Amino acid sequence: MADLLVVGSVALDSVSTPFGKAREVLGGSATYFSYAASFFTNVRLVATVGEDFPAEHIALLKDRGIDTTGLQVSRGRTFRWVGEYGYDLNEAKTLDTQLNVFADFKPMLPGALKKSPFLFLANIAPELQLDVLRQMDRPLLAALDTMNFWIQGKREALLRVLSEVDVLLINESEARQLAREPNLIKAARAVLKLGPRTVVVKRGEYGAVMVSNGHFFFVPAYPLESVFDPTGAGDTFAGGFMGYIAAQGVVDQPTVRRAIVYGSVMASFTVEDFSLNRLKTLQPDEVERRYAAFQDLVRFDI
Amino acid sequence: MADLLVVGSVALDSVSTPFGKAREVLGGSATYFSYAASFFTNVRLVATVGEDFPAEHIALLKDRGIDTTGLQVSRGRTFRWVGEYGYDLNEAKTLDTQLNVFADFKPMLPGALKKSPFLFLANIAPELQLDVLRQMDRPLLAALDTMNFWIQGKREALLRVLSEVDVLLINESEARQLAREPNLIKAARAVLKLGPRTVVVKRGEYGAVMVSNGHFFFVPAYPLESVFDPTGAGDTFAGGFMGYIAAQGVVDQPTVRRAIVYGSVMASFTVEDFSLNRLKTLQPDEVERRYAAFQDLVRFDI
Repeated sequence: MADLLVVGSVALDSVSTPFGKAREVLGGSATYFSYAASFFTNVRLVATVGEDFPAEHIALLKDRGIDTTGLQVSRGRTFRWVGEYGYDLNEAKTLDTQLNVFADFKPMLPGALKKSPFLFLANIAPELQLDVLRQMDRPLLAALDTMNFWIQGKREALLRVLSEVDVLLINESEARQLAREPNLIKAARAVLKLGPRTVVVKRGEYGAVMVSNGHFFFVPAYPLESVFDPTGAGDTFAGGFMGYIAAQGVVDQPTVRRAIVYGSVMASFTVEDFSLNRLKTLQPDEVERRYAAFQDLVRFDI
Repeated sequence: MADLLVVGSVALDSVSTPFGKAREVLGGSATYFSYAASFFTNVRLVATVGEDFPAEHIALLKDRGIDTTGLQVSRGRTFRWVGEYGYDLNEAKTLDTQLNVFADFKPMLPGALKKSPFLFLANIAPELQLDVLRQMDRPLLAALDTMNFWIQGKREALLRVLSEVDVLLINESEARQLAREPNLIKAARAVLKLGPRTVVVKRGEYGAVMVSNGHFFFVPAYPLESVFDPTGAGDTFAGGFMGYIAAQGVVDQPTVRRAIVYGSVMASFTVEDFSLNRLKTLQPDEVERRYAAFQDLVRFDI
């Protein structure tokens, strides 16, 4: 079991979906990621919160064994996001973003964290992602997430950091946007020419596809009768994916495929409730049962 | 190997896609279906064409061993469809529909065809689908396709024939429309309450999902760098699906799962060129190689 470092956001989210509302609940890319990854391996979190951040949230992460020495408490208020989803639930509409302390986030890695063999650069400014990479001894595997905002506004910086990572996790529409190519298969191949050896495209209710070294691997989304709140699904997916790989300590094709299924498993739980509510009650045997259910979803050579 | 009867349309299509144009080429639901199914089993075609229908098209079907005794040549012109696709290729825009002889299509099954153990009711008016079912000795397996036009305009008749078939093949958006339910999983379960034991939802570039008897089965679409023309993909899928089942002569869960993969295999070839052009050169070993490739696309418990 190897150490996994994540750098990203810890936030307070206010979300409304067709099924309910939640106000100022625990959110943020690094939060969902680290909580999901903690089911598999040792996680180290680097992020910033304000003085108003509830201590109970930090206790929640520590209770999962997450190393929070890199979680900086800064003067000011915590990053807040306000969003809503309509019935299709595939895309959030952002109503308000208050960056607060996150606006001045400058990740400084404590010495011990610089040697983490597995690294996830969650969706933050590409210059910061590159800066984190520079502070580290080269990890065995570095993965990165990004979004339309950086693809459009910080393309040069994004291409720079992309050229130095191993895995890109990205939404389907953003993969097309990054590659400037409507066909997803061509887009994925184009992305691979930018640096990463592996691209994992997240397709929401259609699951995920990995393209690597001439191989394609598809996994469906778990069939849920009610997707309650999709917030955090992508970061939870990344947490399960990277957590499983770090736990195995190897990066071969069979491991990466199983990791994508574990990512899908974890994401399928997150969307069943607001915030980390479902993950908080999740038991390891439930994870294994849903993994087995994924096998049944796609098996046909029987 | 058991006989498979299809009732549907034979048409002359004019199609434009971002990659080219084709004028008055062979098309129609029963055409794509029967050609694809002929790779697996004995197919019997019931449809109508006009006096202008090129004899070479009938010869093409006969060369595949398709029984065309139910293909009626009526006074008048053949059914014509004119459509175009934009870059997303997921939905055709119909520019013109000339029903011609198809407007008076009243399928009359020659005696020998009434005993076909496998039946596919392609996308025609639900009253005609029911009338065909009434003419037959109850098949071992009856499957049906439909579309938004009938869901909206002939709902009662559609519900009537649905209550008497075993399998519904339907597009994703039409499944939601039929069930009046945005969540696909709930929609599929609602459709199962209307009669069919199995529903197969066609999701275009996202593949297909089958729901039956508490089981879900997902298959991705084959990753193609260029989808040249999606016309006929759904009917080709149905042809591969029903053709494989009829060839096996059994309708258990493993057979139905493999049938969905064969349907996906056949559809992946059709979209590589206009009309039946790709299927015309397709060899059985290419079908088997692509089936094996599908296994590699989803396999992870290795």
